[in-house]
This record gives sequence, C-alpha cells and structure tokens, in this order.
Amino acid sequence: MSPRSKEQAGLAQAGAGRRQRVTIAHIALAAGVSPSTVSKVLNGNAEVSATTRQRVQVLLADLGYERRSSAQAGTPPLVDLIFQELESPWAMEIIKGAVAAAAEVGLNVALTSLSEHGSARSWLDHVCARGTRGVILLLASLDKRHKAELRSRGLPFAVVDPRGERDPTVTTVGSTNWAGGFSATRHLIELGHQRIGMISGPIDLLCSRARMDGYRSAMESAGLSIDPDLMAWGDFHVDGGFKAAMAMLSLPARPSAIFAGSDLQALGVLEAARLQHVRVPSDLSLVGFDDLPLSTWTSPPLTTVRQPLAEMASTAVGLVLGLGRTEGTQGQSVELATSLVIRETSAPPH
Amino acid sequence: MSPRSKEQAGLAQAGAGRRQRVTIAHIALAAGVSPSTVSKVLNGNAEVSATTRQRVQVLLADLGYERRSSAQAGTPPLVDLIFQELESPWAMEIIKGAVAAAAEVGLNVALTSLSEHGSARSWLDHVCARGTRGVILLLASLDKRHKAELRSRGLPFAVVDPRGERDPTVTTVGSTNWAGGFSATRHLIELGHQRIGMISGPIDLLCSRARMDGYRSAMESAGLSIDPDLMAWGDFHVDGGFKAAMAMLSLPARPSAIFAGSDLQALGVLEAARLQHVRVPSDLSLVGFDDLPLSTWTSPPLTTVRQPLAEMASTAVGLVLGLGRTEGTQGQSVELATSLVIRETSAPPH
Repeated sequence: MSPRSKEQAGLAQAGAGRRQRVTIAHIALAAGVSPSTVSKVLNGNAEVSATTRQRVQVLLADLGYERRSSAQAGTPPLVDLIFQELESPWAMEIIKGAVAAAAEVGLNVALTSLSEHGSARSWLDHVCARGTRGVILLLASLDKRHKAELRSRGLPFAVVDPRGERDPTVTTVGSTNWAGGFSATRHLIELGHQRIGMISGPIDLLCSRARMDGYRSAMESAGLSIDPDLMAWGDFHVDGGFKAAMAMLSLPARPSAIFAGSDLQALGVLEAARLQHVRVPSDLSLVGFDDLPLSTWTSPPLTTVRQPLAEMASTAVGLVLGLGRTEGTQGQSVELATSLVIRETSAPPH
Repeated sequence: MSPRSKEQAGLAQAGAGRRQRVTIAHIALAAGVSPSTVSKVLNGNAEVSATTRQRVQVLLADLGYERRSSAQAGTPPLVDLIFQELESPWAMEIIKGAVAAAAEVGLNVALTSLSEHGSARSWLDHVCARGTRGVILLLASLDKRHKAELRSRGLPFAVVDPRGERDPTVTTVGSTNWAGGFSATRHLIELGHQRIGMISGPIDLLCSRARMDGYRSAMESAGLSIDPDLMAWGDFHVDGGFKAAMAMLSLPARPSAIFAGSDLQALGVLEAARLQHVRVPSDLSLVGFDDLPLSTWTSPPLTTVRQPLAEMASTAVGLVLGLGRTEGTQGQSVELATSLVIRETSAPPH
C-alpha cells in the first residue's frame, strides 16, 4: 500500500468512526438500564420485566441497533474460554470471572484445554462448527494463522494476560505487572530490607519481565544495588520458586526478603525456608503475586500483590461481547490495577 | 399403580432388558476399538482413520445402533457441568476430569455456577433451550422437580458426590469415603497414636458422615476409646478445620494426631498449629482427604487420602454419554476407590 492510499484508508476509518454504529452501551444509556439488561433483552432472557423489555425493544428499533455479526443469530448462547492447560488455581479464578460475566447476560462458558485437544487446529474447527458468541484465549502463544482464522470467521476474540509482544490488532486484557512488581519491592524496602531477592516467571513472558523490571526500578530508586545472584527466572509454579529459593538461601550472604513473582512460587519459597530452618517472617520476608485464594491459607498468610484475575476475565468477556462503550474495536489493550495486600509474611528484618 | 400393574411394569422392564439395545460399547467390542473411537465416528470427529471409520460405520448399520435420544441430533456438542459454586480447588479437579473426558469424544464442557445463575429454574431452562448431550450435577441438593424435568426432557444426567440420601433412580458417582476414613485413621493408629481427633465436613452430607464412621470403626477395632471432644463437624473449608483444631489444641489433653476430613480443613489445622506453637509432625500428626494439588505444596507436604476427583468426573461424563457397557441405565451408583498417600505430616508420636 502506498503512503497515499494508507492515508486514505486512515481517513476512511476516521469517517467510519464519526458515523458511529449504535452499540448496546448506547441503547443502555438511552433506556436508563445497564448494558447487561439490554443484552438480556436481545438474548430473550426472561429475567427482564415486561416494561423494561418493551422500552429497550423500542429503542433498539428506533436507534437502528444491528447485531454485531450476522453469525450471532442462531449461534448457541456460549462464550468460549481456551486454556493452554487447566493446571493451576490461577485458571480457576479466570473461570470464575468468566462464568459470572457470561451468566450476567444469559450465556454459558464452554471450556477447552489445549493440552487435552492436542492441536490448536482441532479446537478452532470445533468451536467454529458449533458456533460461539466470542472467544477468550489464555494461551502460551497465539499464532498468525489462528488470528487470521478467527477474523475470517467473524469471531470476536480477546487475549487475557498476553504472553509475547504486543499486537496492536488484538484485544488484550492484563494487569499492571510493572507497578505490582514495583510496589511489592518498595514495601520490602520500606520495612528496612536491603538484600532483596526476586524470582520472576519465565523470561519470555511479558508479565514476567514487567514484574522483574518493577523490582529493579524500586531497588534503583531506593539507591540499593542488585546482586545478580538474587535475581532468578522461574516458571510461575511451586517448583520454580522452590529451586530459586533453595539457591538464594544457600548463599553465604542470604537475602532477608524475597519477592516471589507469583503465589505458587511463594509456596515453593515457604517450603525451601522450612527445609533450611529459615523462619518466615522473622528470618525471611516474603511477598507473592496474584492473591489467589490459597494466599490466605498459607502458614503464615501471604503478603502478596493482588491481580484482579476474575475482573480480567469478566472484562475480556465484556469486550468480546461488545458490552462496553467501544464495541467493535479490536485491538484494545486494557490493564487492570494491581494492589498490595499486606498479610503476615512480611516484617522488618531483625 | 396397583401391585398387579407394578409387577407387569417390572416384567416389561426385564423384558426390555433381555432385548438389550445395541450400545456404543457393543460396537466398540465388535470393531476392536475403544468406545471413545466409536463416539468420535458418531460425532464426525476427524481424528479417526478412514479405515477405522468405515469399519465402525458398517457395524453401526449392521448391528442396528440407534442414538440414545432423538434430541441428540442437532444438539450442540456439549456436556454441562452444574456447580453449586465455583469456589474451591476441589471444583478445579472435577472440571479438569470432565474437560478431558469430553474432549476424548469431541465435546466441550459448558459450565454453570448456581451461585451466579440465581435460581435453579433458570439454568435448567437455559440448558434445555440450548440443548446438551448430558448434565453432570454437583449440587447441594437435587430436588424432585429438577429430576422430573431433566427426565421429561430426555436429558441424561448424573450426580457427582451425592449429598443427601441415595436415590435409586439417579446415577451417582462418588468415592469410598468410609474406607478412606478408616485407612487414614488406621495409618495414625499404626504410627502409635491413641488420642486422635477427627474433623469431618457438614453433618448432613453423606460423604462427611461416611468419613466420620470410618474413623470411628478404625478406633473401635483398635480398642481405642473416642473422646467426644475430639470429634467435630466442620464445613470442608479452611475455616472449619481452623476452628475445630483451635478448640482441640486448647484441650488440657490435646490430641497427638488429627484426621482433618478434607485437604482444605487440613490447611486450617496447620494454621491453628502454627498459632499455638504446635509443630507438625513432631507434636501433631495430620492427615487430610482429597489429595488436591495443594497437598503437595503445604509445608510440610500433607499426608492425605486420595480421592480420584478427575476420574469421578470423567466416569460421570462416560455414564451420561452412555460410553460404558451399561448405556441407558439411570440409577447406577459408582464408588471409586480412595487410597492413602503418605507424605510428611504424619509421624510416630514423641
């Protein structure tokens, strides 16, 4: 495409933007109800009162609402959730959020685990043959072919917690990983720790690198040097945290605090500390990341960075169903805020 | 119905039993393939080789296989999993098993959480309107109306881990709770413990009562008396275990071992022990029940009774889809075996 025709395409797009199509959000605003109520009316859900139903239906007709995709009529009332594997409590939180958001608008969630389905090809055929209102992906990677295929079939999709480089044409929902890593580390620094270890996830995941960078920035802005022996890349599972902590706690000058990068890795650190007779928090402070339900069950309960996993999933459901204000704009990127949850594994060094 | 006509109905049923209908299992046996392969052929799944497909199709025609329900043609390739709530790691194991078993035969799992859907009525309407190949229920209770409705709509269903009284007309899948309770307690007795506490789940759940009875029988058959202060009914969650253990560990003569009735309750016991400066296992042995993934992550790793949750779910999927030998017989009751998994929370008393 020449620079000239690119410009024209850009103008055409902007023009289309001005002739904004009527969305569920517009109808909701006009009717004085929530977008999910409008969606319920569209889906024939019986929970809406007759008066509201009628008001919404009149507005749908008057304002000229058109369903986003002609494929939607006749497709089963499902949203698809595609996992790489169904292996961690992390997945459960995502499922809960998606099921709740889908139920709001009278849809069910259909689950696929790629580790069961074998090839990515087969789940896609499967979902396409059966039909779906939208697809939420939680994958190690999303290759070009999938993207093209989802698009060519007119299926709206979103990626939760994107793994690789940002693709500006794909809608993604994540959390503020860098800020979370920064606040976890600053919390430990404010308690008085100076030798702080960091165990992040796999080096090739964006969220993992962002958390590590947050740690580095907090250390640097406090004027603390970083010992390379106290920086490790794990796997976000218990074992990764265990191995890295066993190494750090065996150092001649061991850390007085560890930021574990994920709650599961924090469990591994707790086990390593127990085996090495290191008491938490009196000998070692510990901060996780995620705030999974299990973080309140550890002994002692875990200080961690809360990542709103259920909200991330429900946001993704809202985006693929076009329940937001910005219906139809593939390529949005949403980062939900993390927050520090202080429990009992972090204390001043003795 | 008069006694006479009841008898006739019984005979008619037995007669129908003799003219046994051709099932997927029969076809599989004749073709020398697995039931899931036959099911794949029926579902048009592309993973079956052309030769096998042809052999199976010939046998389906020759032996006169008929689909179980006329409703099956045209229904989406889904199995429904209905939870009371999606709140525990226990649910994740059930989901994993169901997703794997459904994927085997080219189906997806659709999830419903009653705590999201509000009324039981609405999920049933929803599922019926959309269609399903079968329904697996994990509910606090299944009332008569649901049963009647599922039946009248010809939807095969099964209950996993039935809660209340056994209904001989409902297919159920559970585990050997009594035997599990017995073996957990005997393990502690064999280590030399005599003052053994038991925290079971809610008193109105069958599985909870069976585990308590297993404990009682093991104590009695070892000639050990049971202190009523060492028997508690919890809630199968962390908090129930915590509260009961706080009480037991505050007794003048505290137990040297606790059988916690569930892994989550065992987490609560661990936390109570930590707060009371009771070391596990040197001061207190502990056995859980479930063998959730988290039981390998606790510090120390938890001795527990393994309940094959994923297999329970996949068995239920197999039963509702009629993949077993006994297609079409509602009212089966399957109990899968539990087994003791010895890790590091159980040791001889000191």
